[in-house]
Amino acid sequence: MASNGDSNVTNRDAFRQIVVNTLERRLFYVPSFKIYGGVAGLYDYGPPGCAVKANVLAFWRQHFVLEENMLEVDCPCVTPEIVLKASGHVDKFTDLMVKDEKTGTCYRADHLLKDFCKDKLEKDVNMAAEKAAELKHVLAVLDDLSAEELGEKIKEYAIVAPDTKNSLSDPYPFNLMFQTSIGPSGLSPGFMRPETAQGIFVNFKDLYYYNGNKLPFAAAQIGQAFRNEISPRQGLLRVREFTLAEIEHFVDPDDKSHPKFSDVSTLEFLMFPREEQVSGQPAKRTCLGEAVSKGTVNNETLGYFIGRVYLFLTYLGIDKDRLRFRQHLANEMAHYAADCWDAEIECSFGWIECVGIADRSAYDLRAHTDKSGVPLVAHEKFAEPREVEKLVIAPVKKELGLAFKGDQRMVCEALEAMSEKEAMGMKANLESKGEVEFNVCTLAKDVTIKKNMVAISKEIKKEHQRVFTPSVIEPSFGIGRIIYCLYEHSFYTRPSKTGDEQLNVFRFPPLVAPIKCTVFPLVQNQEYEEVAKHIAHSLTAAGISYKIDITGTSIGKRYARTDELGVPFAITVDSTSSVTIRERDSKVQIRVDVVEVASVVKEVTEGQSTWNDMLSKYNAPSVPDDE
Amino acid sequence: MASNGDSNVTNRDAFRQIVVNTLERRLFYVPSFKIYGGVAGLYDYGPPGCAVKANVLAFWRQHFVLEENMLEVDCPCVTPEIVLKASGHVDKFTDLMVKDEKTGTCYRADHLLKDFCKDKLEKDVNMAAEKAAELKHVLAVLDDLSAEELGEKIKEYAIVAPDTKNSLSDPYPFNLMFQTSIGPSGLSPGFMRPETAQGIFVNFKDLYYYNGNKLPFAAAQIGQAFRNEISPRQGLLRVREFTLAEIEHFVDPDDKSHPKFSDVSTLEFLMFPREEQVSGQPAKRTCLGEAVSKGTVNNETLGYFIGRVYLFLTYLGIDKDRLRFRQHLANEMAHYAADCWDAEIECSFGWIECVGIADRSAYDLRAHTDKSGVPLVAHEKFAEPREVEKLVIAPVKKELGLAFKGDQRMVCEALEAMSEKEAMGMKANLESKGEVEFNVCTLAKDVTIKKNMVAISKEIKKEHQRVFTPSVIEPSFGIGRIIYCLYEHSFYTRPSKTGDEQLNVFRFPPLVAPIKCTVFPLVQNQEYEEVAKHIAHSLTAAGISYKIDITGTSIGKRYARTDELGVPFAITVDSTSSVTIRERDSKVQIRVDVVEVASVVKEVTEGQSTWNDMLSKYNAPSVPDDE
Repeated sequence: MASNGDSNVTNRDAFRQIVVNTLERRLFYVPSFKIYGGVAGLYDYGPPGCAVKANVLAFWRQHFVLEENMLEVDCPCVTPEIVLKASGHVDKFTDLMVKDEKTGTCYRADHLLKDFCKDKLEKDVNMAAEKAAELKHVLAVLDDLSAEELGEKIKEYAIVAPDTKNSLSDPYPFNLMFQTSIGPSGLSPGFMRPETAQGIFVNFKDLYYYNGNKLPFAAAQIGQAFRNEISPRQGLLRVREFTLAEIEHFVDPDDKSHPKFSDVSTLEFLMFPREEQVSGQPAKRTCLGEAVSKGTVNNETLGYFIGRVYLFLTYLGIDKDRLRFRQHLANEMAHYAADCWDAEIECSFGWIECVGIADRSAYDLRAHTDKSGVPLVAHEKFAEPREVEKLVIAPVKKELGLAFKGDQRMVCEALEAMSEKEAMGMKANLESKGEVEFNVCTLAKDVTIKKNMVAISKEIKKEHQRVFTPSVIEPSFGIGRIIYCLYEHSFYTRPSKTGDEQLNVFRFPPLVAPIKCTVFPLVQNQEYEEVAKHIAHSLTAAGISYKIDITGTSIGKRYARTDELGVPFAITVDSTSSVTIRERDSKVQIRVDVVEVASVVKEVTEGQSTWNDMLSKYNAPSVPDDE
Repeated sequence: MASNGDSNVTNRDAFRQIVVNTLERRLFYVPSFKIYGGVAGLYDYGPPGCAVKANVLAFWRQHFVLEENMLEVDCPCVTPEIVLKASGHVDKFTDLMVKDEKTGTCYRADHLLKDFCKDKLEKDVNMAAEKAAELKHVLAVLDDLSAEELGEKIKEYAIVAPDTKNSLSDPYPFNLMFQTSIGPSGLSPGFMRPETAQGIFVNFKDLYYYNGNKLPFAAAQIGQAFRNEISPRQGLLRVREFTLAEIEHFVDPDDKSHPKFSDVSTLEFLMFPREEQVSGQPAKRTCLGEAVSKGTVNNETLGYFIGRVYLFLTYLGIDKDRLRFRQHLANEMAHYAADCWDAEIECSFGWIECVGIADRSAYDLRAHTDKSGVPLVAHEKFAEPREVEKLVIAPVKKELGLAFKGDQRMVCEALEAMSEKEAMGMKANLESKGEVEFNVCTLAKDVTIKKNMVAISKEIKKEHQRVFTPSVIEPSFGIGRIIYCLYEHSFYTRPSKTGDEQLNVFRFPPLVAPIKCTVFPLVQNQEYEEVAKHIAHSLTAAGISYKIDITGTSIGKRYARTDELGVPFAITVDSTSSVTIRERDSKVQIRVDVVEVASVVKEVTEGQSTWNDMLSKYNAPSVPDDE
């Protein structure tokens, strides 16, 4: 990663400004509800942005859903409270917030502390080495600070509201879900889903059945998700509503091998394991097969998805040298997760998490099993019944009734709920001492259990199947973030023919390009316009999106306009029998018969042929004079 | 339409039950959050339903967006209050609700009255003719009843809460939008959008510019919309969250002709104009061109979209004999609308509105112009400046100041705001009488205007352009409703080979089918499985979705399973060199070389060839023994 020096930051900001200006001017995206002053964190995709998004999603479906025979589902955004209570979002999906004590304006507490430390480190040239080290430490542990610790630091550094310089409240958690109410009674709280994954988990039982009660299988969902950010910034990267594409791959926890791992095992790309991050080494080009065999990546299935994500992003046009897979540090990872890697893409804002690929173990299915009482489990039928040693706890109800009267049921249940270890301990104690103190948590007290009250033994039983909660491996794609990074990676400028201005170009691959080609009559006359319309008609029939421009603007200007939209091919009608097709980046043209145009464009945009194939098939003339 | 006789209703209910059972069992859709007891009006699309939806939306994009070069946009669901205040939804998007006075359970007032009347008419065989006529009248005017009128009827008929027989509250309006709060302050109310159209209207200025400041053009949006229904019923037909696909076609109000109208003018289908409905005639097969030329349909552009919607729905597989275009009655139409037609599809619930096609005149753009202060207008530049007679009102401020002191500005503004008619009236009065009483509404009183206080004249001015608010023609598609009706129209049963059970089939066209083909090794052996996997691989490469079934189940049973998913083609591997392809509805098979299978299936599913083409190309054997 480039250094964070001042001039570098300025260059990045300047670059971003050019890209964002182009994107907003050409309606790739604009702030939503602009005529009413807009709403922070909400954006509209205009025609080219909407087409890019549709292309990215169509390719995602082809690359993941179709290729892996995934079960795609489509669940509502409106979600009842109980589902998000089970998933933990109602209690834990929060950011710490502080309020300007006079105006009530809200800020994210960690952002203010982060900005303060960064600003000090950059501007205070006379800072003592000790102080600098302290601030750097704060930045490093920022994500781990509790509300109290954050509050203390804000007080210690005398941080105030950035806009008014007023003092700030103590930090307190703000739930990031948009809340609403389902139905007219006002008694059914609901939320707009913060992710699409829960819709898959609650359907596990039906999906497992649909898949013939077989593991592994994956379900997938594309849809809107919502996060009521405290103070959105960084444009498309941190927004209040966004499109997620999520996969939940369900697998036997005892066997996370993947039959197609060999398809991706020889891929090499930048990986950034936990150890390298902690010891201050950079991300290194690594062979995926080695990373799995060495155990750096926890298992083959996780590795397989890392490889598939790498292929997906680079096919789209993400620069492979500005893409890395970073492993979560121990403190970033949820306690239940087995391993977690983020696909991070470098853009002018730094390295941005765009895809998370996590082995979440059995956490989600267990949480919904517990809350709903519906077992979300898989079965493995044994070919032959297996003999298994089983713990048998048999409370003697008569003796328990005599001893505990009305509490008998509670005691009985508590005995039955003992773990193997507890039960065997009790058995040993009863045999040696004749009685034992036993805590019944539902009674909130200890009771004395005597030898005649319970029989504990181990028996050999025959089992016909194994029942278990599958592990889930979850690749989760932030589509808007990927698209924004793609815009930055695809953008370049080149001088106009006269050299007096810089022209903007997006080098989108045809797969992604919002419009596949343009049709320009060279000069305004009816004959050429007829030919242009005929070509337009054949493009529609072939399912190729195009833009026709019959204005009298110079052909050079018309090329420049569509280069700025990333249109890969421009068809110029300069005769009634044949036309030229110009490739955007090389500006090289070929001459093609009118009747063949649509099929040539279809072949190169859909990938059956390359532009180079076409160059050798049609004798390519050089770049024409008027560019 | 079939009569509403009892036996007919029973047949319909029985038919619906079979279809819905099949749909839920095969996961076309299921109630959302089922493991938590579900939420009324929310449904998940499982794998086949999700694929059908994706296919319908992809075809919608091809048929409308690509074919007409529409500008597709993608706006957020979360919408600030001001936008929906301008559109009228905050004030008027309500249903009338009554509450059970003891339990608080909510009901739609009109539904209770409707159910009561229908029930009485059906069951009370001894009802007096007068009473029956009265109830029928109530049903006819139901949609026009005010809260007070509904309340009176509920009292008069002594209607009680259906579940508890408790008495009911008076009806009161309940806003159907899901409300939420944007940002952490709690000061910015927002709603989940009830339609996607507003996102297009607020972007009109940018989209008009993007289109080269030219009319007509259309913008389109596919996305989620939300309605917090009081008591959802009728399955997928009345839900709380649904996918809309909407088009806003902006056109010069003085010229609503359409250059491509001739492409659809010869179409003939069932139309149900206002007059026929009022006079009790049935819908009639009508030629679209005639309906427009006679003025039954208001204009060519509206007619063009009616024709395109007809083609869209019938291509999908909607039965053209159970599809009609019904014109809104005068009392159904908003006061500003020029004309409005619904595409209604008949299903077991009756005739269901699935697409609305409305000429909304300039209403929406004007509403947002007024609220935002940003003029959402179009310009027509004249080739030559035109001479236009213009009204000029010139208040004489000195005289007004002397006469009205501090009120001078108000009087002045009121004079300038006069319409042409008012102003010319005043001019005539001033000339004849020398003075005139004039109401200044901002002062809430009349003042006396004298001849020396204002000069009113008409002057010839040169104008270079015309500025106007475009009309909008809006086709709006309820995707879930279309899909549900498609399920009913596609469903049939046929006896199994042994005749002892009825097998379910969905006759989806390949365009719609969730999975395009299945791959079955005839018997379980490694050779056949290898061939099956090879074919599967080539199908994936060709972008064709498939399902592979290597269980040892009989081939007849495997066919039956996939017929029930509407899979049009089944590939059976019965040798290593060639395989059979069976067509779902005819059950006829052809024999094709293994290397050709993927391309044959691709051609017939993507429409380059028909099944009949394939029958003549490959010698078709008859239906095999095992079916």
